[in-house]
Amino acid sequence: MRVLLALLLSATIAPPAAADPLEAAHRLVAAARDDAWGYRLLEGLTTEVGPRLAGTEAERRAADWSAGKMREAGFDAVRIEDFPITAWVRGVETAKIVAPVPQPLVVTALGGSVATPAGGLTAEIALFRTLADMMDAPAGALAGRIAVVTQRQTRFLDGSGYGAANPVRRAGPSEAARRGARAYLHRSLGTDSHRLAHTGALNYRDDAPRIPAAALSNPDADQLERLAARGAVTVHVELSPLSLPDRKAYTVIADIRGREKPDEVVLIGAHLDSWDLGTGAIDDGAGVAIVTAAARLIAKVAPYPRRTVRVVLFGAEEMGYSGAAFAAAHGSEADRIVVAAECDFGARRVVSVELPKGAAGTPFADALTRALTPIGVVASPVPATRAGDDVNPLGKMGVPLMALRQNGIDYFDIHHTADDTFDKVDRDELAQATAAWAAFAYLAAEMPVDFRASAER
Amino acid sequence: MRVLLALLLSATIAPPAAADPLEAAHRLVAAARDDAWGYRLLEGLTTEVGPRLAGTEAERRAADWSAGKMREAGFDAVRIEDFPITAWVRGVETAKIVAPVPQPLVVTALGGSVATPAGGLTAEIALFRTLADMMDAPAGALAGRIAVVTQRQTRFLDGSGYGAANPVRRAGPSEAARRGARAYLHRSLGTDSHRLAHTGALNYRDDAPRIPAAALSNPDADQLERLAARGAVTVHVELSPLSLPDRKAYTVIADIRGREKPDEVVLIGAHLDSWDLGTGAIDDGAGVAIVTAAARLIAKVAPYPRRTVRVVLFGAEEMGYSGAAFAAAHGSEADRIVVAAECDFGARRVVSVELPKGAAGTPFADALTRALTPIGVVASPVPATRAGDDVNPLGKMGVPLMALRQNGIDYFDIHHTADDTFDKVDRDELAQATAAWAAFAYLAAEMPVDFRASAER
Repeated sequence: MRVLLALLLSATIAPPAAADPLEAAHRLVAAARDDAWGYRLLEGLTTEVGPRLAGTEAERRAADWSAGKMREAGFDAVRIEDFPITAWVRGVETAKIVAPVPQPLVVTALGGSVATPAGGLTAEIALFRTLADMMDAPAGALAGRIAVVTQRQTRFLDGSGYGAANPVRRAGPSEAARRGARAYLHRSLGTDSHRLAHTGALNYRDDAPRIPAAALSNPDADQLERLAARGAVTVHVELSPLSLPDRKAYTVIADIRGREKPDEVVLIGAHLDSWDLGTGAIDDGAGVAIVTAAARLIAKVAPYPRRTVRVVLFGAEEMGYSGAAFAAAHGSEADRIVVAAECDFGARRVVSVELPKGAAGTPFADALTRALTPIGVVASPVPATRAGDDVNPLGKMGVPLMALRQNGIDYFDIHHTADDTFDKVDRDELAQATAAWAAFAYLAAEMPVDFRASAER
Repeated sequence: MRVLLALLLSATIAPPAAADPLEAAHRLVAAARDDAWGYRLLEGLTTEVGPRLAGTEAERRAADWSAGKMREAGFDAVRIEDFPITAWVRGVETAKIVAPVPQPLVVTALGGSVATPAGGLTAEIALFRTLADMMDAPAGALAGRIAVVTQRQTRFLDGSGYGAANPVRRAGPSEAARRGARAYLHRSLGTDSHRLAHTGALNYRDDAPRIPAAALSNPDADQLERLAARGAVTVHVELSPLSLPDRKAYTVIADIRGREKPDEVVLIGAHLDSWDLGTGAIDDGAGVAIVTAAARLIAKVAPYPRRTVRVVLFGAEEMGYSGAAFAAAHGSEADRIVVAAECDFGARRVVSVELPKGAAGTPFADALTRALTPIGVVASPVPATRAGDDVNPLGKMGVPLMALRQNGIDYFDIHHTADDTFDKVDRDELAQATAAWAAFAYLAAEMPVDFRASAER
């Protein structure tokens, strides 16, 4: 009894949250690593909602479901905003080798692709090992052909192989069309060797015909390379996706309201939409779980920091709409956003942080480094210049950006495939990432940081 | 010139094959590890033929292709035999969760399954964590339901988890039907976590209605478990496979003819048919490559042993026809088969050998152990009682069996899925396995072994 009384007194006399931001950050980190709330949230989202393609009923369900969970968890001012998009939904997607010997091919349509003629199209392929090789082909050189690019994505811990290979998916279809191709296939942007193709959005150029485009699984790209080395190869491909204009997508927003300066906002985001093939566990259910669980822990363990911690779940990242939509809707509040960051790189550990420009050496940087070094997070020597597709437009409006980089060594084994499911998530790694986000958001909300000022020094 | 003459003389005076079987076995092992012929054979089979389901045109192509390669390689008496089977070919196979929330499911029909009604069937599921749990349900308890069994296969290096889980696939459909189920789904027999379902043959019982049956990918089985724990789940499934009676399957046979006793045969086999989902690289293109390359090396490096080394490529292992067909066609020669073994457990290293009963301690066992210990192969204390589905019937006819066990730690990650493709094969591991098979077949053909006699001692 005497011990209990002493504990109560000490809690009353020295409220820990206000006493020392670093001490509170340490407590947040410890609490996050023992907390399964985010892991359970992710289990629920991927199970009870499942795939949630932007602009579909499933995304609406995801928004309602998430808002409900945040209300239950005691978030302030939970709201859902909508914005218009052209949705894109997958249809039939089949392909096969017709000659020299019939064999099935595993493909998946690229987001935004037009359909093939009904019943598909059949043509000899023109295979290139790199996009650059295809670009060397003159106009008309691919007339009547299915262009195939088998360039590989290289595995890096930071995922930088994806950026290097990205034009293969984004620009390849229009570049093939300019040279006369009837359709475009490419080796999936992915680092695995499974018969699961990786989808993702393409970008048609206005000055090129729109041709149907799909990704091959890595083993299927290998097979076409081997066969093309032996002679002519004829492929049949059928895709029947649809573009649906005038659909709505949804942004879910919820706050941990600041106790002194509620109008100043630390914005931590993730995207709620997912590709339809998997259940969006690592992309980006994990981000949703990490930032939501981090904010919830701040409210429970270090309530309430001076500024508002705002969780924003974006609704159309994969098709590239939600960053611009949010910036358009909330641009007038940009000057009150202290810092913005998006968590969209899987479910593994945070390994480094990129601070806002000029923030190195500040008391904030010192406190964050002290909080995160014990859990294996390194301060990057490079300031954050990009922090997620949905917050980068805020950065262009002058909002300071922060990036928490995760271990992505196997992120692109799963990314944008049917394999993006809950079983791929490690509970302890998710908890470590949650701890890092909680410490960052708390310290930015509690400490008197002014990243705009430090950037100018 | 003098050196060349000396070499020719020494070759003439002391043919190395006859000099010392162990020395020749060591040379075979060394040659096999540097030889890429088998790896290239596997690359060609999986590329130029691809999937080769028993009883289809593709299997006929595989037989012709393999016979051609063996003729080119100088095998003796290359021949193709046919035998009648009922083929089974896959059709549409789709499934989805209808309630509580629409989501796709990844399934694949089991070999031999009947079709669902056209358009599929929809029913609430009855989910059981083990086959034993389902067996506890009384007759009629599953009336109108889709029975789902989510029992897991455990990972073992020797693959023994497959045998333990096998009744889930083989017996489950009829056991579900006896209890009134309209269809049967089960967690794939497999140790991976990919959205690729594992096919394989079922065995309908004559006293039960034949209901459609399919395997779920592991993550899909997880998803149904999670949803069933929350409440009722309704699933739609459509399968349209066909059974095709009166088809032919093919056995390819080729010899390295014995120099003294050509009628005495060391039989090394593998199966040429494969499931249709992948290209049959590890199941069993690897076995085809290993035994064919081993026999070819014997002809080149230690020509020609006293007895015949016979390569038999069986044509309908997956649907369970070819072992019985071969035993029926060649049973009269059984007493001239010195020993039989089938290579059908993937493309990894041989880790142990199970000798024919009574062979432990013989000069053959001593020589084989000395040849294989340097490449990491252990002599099992257990004699071979099973040596592959296609040669086990020979064993029942009194033919001594031998087993070379491979590392199968990840065999069931890939087995019977679309992922069974050439990229999964490690060249060095395949070469090590080829070395072990070459040493075994050579020593059994060269040394005066009589396993029937040693078994009786």
